[in-house]
Amino acid sequence: MIVVLKPNVGEEKREQLMDWLKSMDLAVHVSEGAYQTVLGLIGDTSKVDMDLIASLDIVESVKRVSETFKCCNRKFHPEDTVVRVGDARIGGGHFCLIAGPCSVESEEQIVAVARAVKAAGADLLRGGAFKPRTSPYDFQGLHADGIRLLKLAREATGLPIVTEIMSASDLPLFEDVDVLQVGARNMQNFDLLKELGQTGKPILLKRGLANTLKELLMSAEYIMASGNENVILCERGIRTYSDYLRNTLDLSAVPMLHELSHLPVIVDPSHATGIARMVPPMALAATACGCDGLIIEVHNDPSHALCDGAQSLRPEEYAALVGRIRAVREAATC
Amino acid sequence: MIVVLKPNVGEEKREQLMDWLKSMDLAVHVSEGAYQTVLGLIGDTSKVDMDLIASLDIVESVKRVSETFKCCNRKFHPEDTVVRVGDARIGGGHFCLIAGPCSVESEEQIVAVARAVKAAGADLLRGGAFKPRTSPYDFQGLHADGIRLLKLAREATGLPIVTEIMSASDLPLFEDVDVLQVGARNMQNFDLLKELGQTGKPILLKRGLANTLKELLMSAEYIMASGNENVILCERGIRTYSDYLRNTLDLSAVPMLHELSHLPVIVDPSHATGIARMVPPMALAATACGCDGLIIEVHNDPSHALCDGAQSLRPEEYAALVGRIRAVREAATC
Amino acid sequence: MIVVLKPNVGEEKREQLMDWLKSMDLAVHVSEGAYQTVLGLIGDTSKVDMDLIASLDIVESVKRVSETFKCCNRKFHPEDTVVRVGDARIGGGHFCLIAGPCSVESEEQIVAVARAVKAAGADLLRGGAFKPRTSPYDFQGLHADGIRLLKLAREATGLPIVTEIMSASDLPLFEDVDVLQVGARNMQNFDLLKELGQTGKPILLKRGLANTLKELLMSAEYIMASGNENVILCERGIRTYSDYLRNTLDLSAVPMLHELSHLPVIVDPSHATGIARMVPPMALAATACGCDGLIIEVHNDPSHALCDGAQSLRPEEYAALVGRIRAVREAATC
Amino acid sequence: MIVVLKPNVGEEKREQLMDWLKSMDLAVHVSEGAYQTVLGLIGDTSKVDMDLIASLDIVESVKRVSETFKCCNRKFHPEDTVVRVGDARIGGGHFCLIAGPCSVESEEQIVAVARAVKAAGADLLRGGAFKPRTSPYDFQGLHADGIRLLKLAREATGLPIVTEIMSASDLPLFEDVDVLQVGARNMQNFDLLKELGQTGKPILLKRGLANTLKELLMSAEYIMASGNENVILCERGIRTYSDYLRNTLDLSAVPMLHELSHLPVIVDPSHATGIARMVPPMALAATACGCDGLIIEVHNDPSHALCDGAQSLRPEEYAALVGRIRAVREAATC
Repeated sequence: MIVVLKPNVGEEKREQLMDWLKSMDLAVHVSEGAYQTVLGLIGDTSKVDMDLIASLDIVESVKRVSETFKCCNRKFHPEDTVVRVGDARIGGGHFCLIAGPCSVESEEQIVAVARAVKAAGADLLRGGAFKPRTSPYDFQGLHADGIRLLKLAREATGLPIVTEIMSASDLPLFEDVDVLQVGARNMQNFDLLKELGQTGKPILLKRGLANTLKELLMSAEYIMASGNENVILCERGIRTYSDYLRNTLDLSAVPMLHELSHLPVIVDPSHATGIARMVPPMALAATACGCDGLIIEVHNDPSHALCDGAQSLRPEEYAALVGRIRAVREAATC
Repeated sequence: MIVVLKPNVGEEKREQLMDWLKSMDLAVHVSEGAYQTVLGLIGDTSKVDMDLIASLDIVESVKRVSETFKCCNRKFHPEDTVVRVGDARIGGGHFCLIAGPCSVESEEQIVAVARAVKAAGADLLRGGAFKPRTSPYDFQGLHADGIRLLKLAREATGLPIVTEIMSASDLPLFEDVDVLQVGARNMQNFDLLKELGQTGKPILLKRGLANTLKELLMSAEYIMASGNENVILCERGIRTYSDYLRNTLDLSAVPMLHELSHLPVIVDPSHATGIARMVPPMALAATACGCDGLIIEVHNDPSHALCDGAQSLRPEEYAALVGRIRAVREAATC
Repeated sequence: MIVVLKPNVGEEKREQLMDWLKSMDLAVHVSEGAYQTVLGLIGDTSKVDMDLIASLDIVESVKRVSETFKCCNRKFHPEDTVVRVGDARIGGGHFCLIAGPCSVESEEQIVAVARAVKAAGADLLRGGAFKPRTSPYDFQGLHADGIRLLKLAREATGLPIVTEIMSASDLPLFEDVDVLQVGARNMQNFDLLKELGQTGKPILLKRGLANTLKELLMSAEYIMASGNENVILCERGIRTYSDYLRNTLDLSAVPMLHELSHLPVIVDPSHATGIARMVPPMALAATACGCDGLIIEVHNDPSHALCDGAQSLRPEEYAALVGRIRAVREAATC
Repeated sequence: MIVVLKPNVGEEKREQLMDWLKSMDLAVHVSEGAYQTVLGLIGDTSKVDMDLIASLDIVESVKRVSETFKCCNRKFHPEDTVVRVGDARIGGGHFCLIAGPCSVESEEQIVAVARAVKAAGADLLRGGAFKPRTSPYDFQGLHADGIRLLKLAREATGLPIVTEIMSASDLPLFEDVDVLQVGARNMQNFDLLKELGQTGKPILLKRGLANTLKELLMSAEYIMASGNENVILCERGIRTYSDYLRNTLDLSAVPMLHELSHLPVIVDPSHATGIARMVPPMALAATACGCDGLIIEVHNDPSHALCDGAQSLRPEEYAALVGRIRAVREAATC
């Protein structure tokens, strides 16, 4: 349920209303815009007397929301959320370029790639230290050592780092990581989401392989209901009967998620296609339909990458792509 | 099987080779590029002695093609096909804007929309006279009368016309239509495809609801094997478990089809999304990833359209979109 | 809209009501059960005054049906439809075994298979004369000659014959065929469905590769709205991301279709799995959940079949399976 | 890589071979059948000299396995695995009935349901204490208290208990639970799978919403590679474009999983369909195609269940179904 307050309501009256709402076992989420304040009531609102609230002199209107997602709902919070990571900004008109290798392999590799993507214009460095692999016999990442190397690359370049967390029990290792990524396979690992909600850190939440937009938003809701509003949504391809591409990149998710939610939406064309030469056209397409950033795999030696080399761009290819992304973004938003 | 001839082979020697190949019950498809001639052998090539052909003095190389599609295969025919419709060109660097209402409803409506989309920059007019509807109780189109009205609109504006054919028995009615469209539900109506192969007319072939790219190309092959090379492929959204959109627009099909085939590829963002306000972002995305044209629904009075009004743009919205499409296309191809 | 009449309404009063309804441009479908008569009104019922009809002394109740399928809707026609083909019955407690080769290849082959499946207990003989093939270069069937051979097999065994029709223009060839099959790829070839509606012949309608149950019922509706009530629905596997099987057999469609419609529902485990050794378990499963029959591919020499040999049972395997099917059917319905 | 030993190889020679294989950093999985011993080599076998091993006098044959799953592969371990839980057996001809409510709600409820399903013939009691819910605002289960109540029901009836674990950090609470269930959303929560591999306890592994059979087997492999061979696979419906049912029950997975793996395969018709009246036909179908057991939701008061009441059978419905399941199983296996 959404309660829109009249402009210029005094602090005291607002507090009284909120105390009363809380006394009915409701959580109240306050969203203050430039012109009006919106209260989002979370919990069992079936017992709440809408007419009574609407009749209060400080209330402009009351609406029931049929959507089950609330914290991330644009109806509650009409203005775009801007997630801040170091000097970078994501959302609300700020475009963010995230790049780096699938896996962290060595200090030499990660520092070299970090320098290259920074020179090309990237805002954040990505790199996997914990790798979710379908087979238990495949390379699973360098774990703590991988995170240590990411930090060295950050020191060397100033780029904030993004890396995937697979289990809440690893959280102490991620204390000094800038953005924590939840992978597609863990999108509905609700215990992990709840724990991440308590960190306050920016969370990059990837859409699951066959999850609907509503389910993605409900998973964001798990993080936000625990108090963390720094959620970045990521479309990375869904599973269909595709024959020549690994997954089907669902770009119409971008404008639809923007309509449903105030959270920033980025796109991962590397995992979606699985083929390096398909990454540039899909990165441009994602940009043209209004995404707030791109996460792209870049490796200095794709043919020897320990995982997913076939989908990685070389640094010089990435640099060329960044120029085209900027041009398309300008053309599309004019 | 593909036979690449040496440059400057004399006409006579070439004819001898072709006669010999045909004597083995093979059809021979000749593709002449600026620098080399490629012969595509169609039929049971298992008995053909590759080594013998490769040893001929006029032959540069011989390759077996594992793909089952041949006429539409880029390996055979490396240069882009350009389909010509009146003054319009589609493919090979020529971008084509097709627009118009879902259904032809009246002379007033179709002429008004035709004038409006022409003013906005459209190259072809679309409009349904035969409508495939899931329910037998829904409006099925004006049939012969619809085609008559389309021709009036063509007269009034000079725009060539595109309209759907559902049955080969209707072909006489389509004699004076410029481009014949095969709808998604008929993509594997092989008898219809064969008949269209014999018309020689440009065919706009829509991808079926759950068909793979290979199946789409095999359906193009049905048309082309009957002698008609004027095929335009169209991605229009596939069926998944999407919750907020009618279908899932599979834009990665665009660069992948371009890699596999020399045929032009256009995109229909109106049917893919089913929601007018999602059409502009998806049209821009399709443009950015390199499609050769867009087919978009435009209606002068969407709220009273007899079918699919919810996905139609108003003329002024379409005109604004065309400007952005042109800007994105320029930015993406630079 | 459904109008339930009171018991024992006189013929004359009923005719008056029907004439009045027809005067409003409605088609009226009459379903007479043992105890009550139900009128189904088809057409634009939005102008019909429900209260007025409900107030008539011969009317027991009036309901608006939100489902868009009407003729095939169980609400209209609560009793199971039984389709009759020669001596065979399908639906309403009658179980029907259809068997035969994917393609008719020669007189020797089809007569031998027909004799074998008859001996095993089959009620109908299937065999393809017109084959919808993804590739134009694959065997397309013997066409008229195939139908001629099927008739010879019918003469030799007395088994009625089932074969696929791909185009309404072939209808004259099918005049003496007992059951006309519409293949999955033509499920939404609405022009073909309308023409079949006018034949009055039993139609075996296969579910399309990615069609919903509602769409299948709407396609049945196209046939029935043209006056033909002899429709047999067939589940034959849908397209998913299956890795080891060709399609995903959707057996829950069987009880759900029975709930929604009065039409008989049969299952094709051969096309659904594409693997002969998977046919027996899936045939038994289909039987256990209540299907009204099974269509199974049987070939006397699967390794030399011209199409789909890998999914064909040998006659002795089929005979063994029939015994198990009968036992499971008895156990499941007790 | 698989090494098949000759019959009657002495213990000492076998140990020497295994030591040598382990010295090459390979794990060796020994499977002893009645007539022969099979060694499965797990790890990087690319450096292993196949010819050298094949030439040893105790070795009958050596094969490379292209499948990436090994421990659960039937090629390694041709005989069915039988999982034991108290007096119950699952697999290898032993059929197991698991039943109970979606959620544990109260002592009264769970003990009453346990008594009812035991009387009906169930072998194990299921009940959720930790519930994975799409929305953070839905009932999440009684947690530790739910497990306590399950144990009370076990005491009252003697039925072993099955309940879902969502996070490895909850493992201490599950110490005295008989079978740990991994839900569909956690099928690729690899950290959880690894931890469960170390418990040695029977694990009921549900197939994910859109996971292939190979991915399901690879997830079983995660558990087994950590040393736990007590894995029960469970098909529970996959996500498609289904319109009238929640998911699409993929019963062809049952015979295919049996072909690929020696692990027992059970079916959950309750979650697959989401509708109580669809549970009996699908339970019978699953039985007919050879599953090793059924997990079915039963609630003594479905209309007041805290979750998924719509898919729960009443105890008397379950008892009637068990009789039919037994009859179909007998008919199908004769």
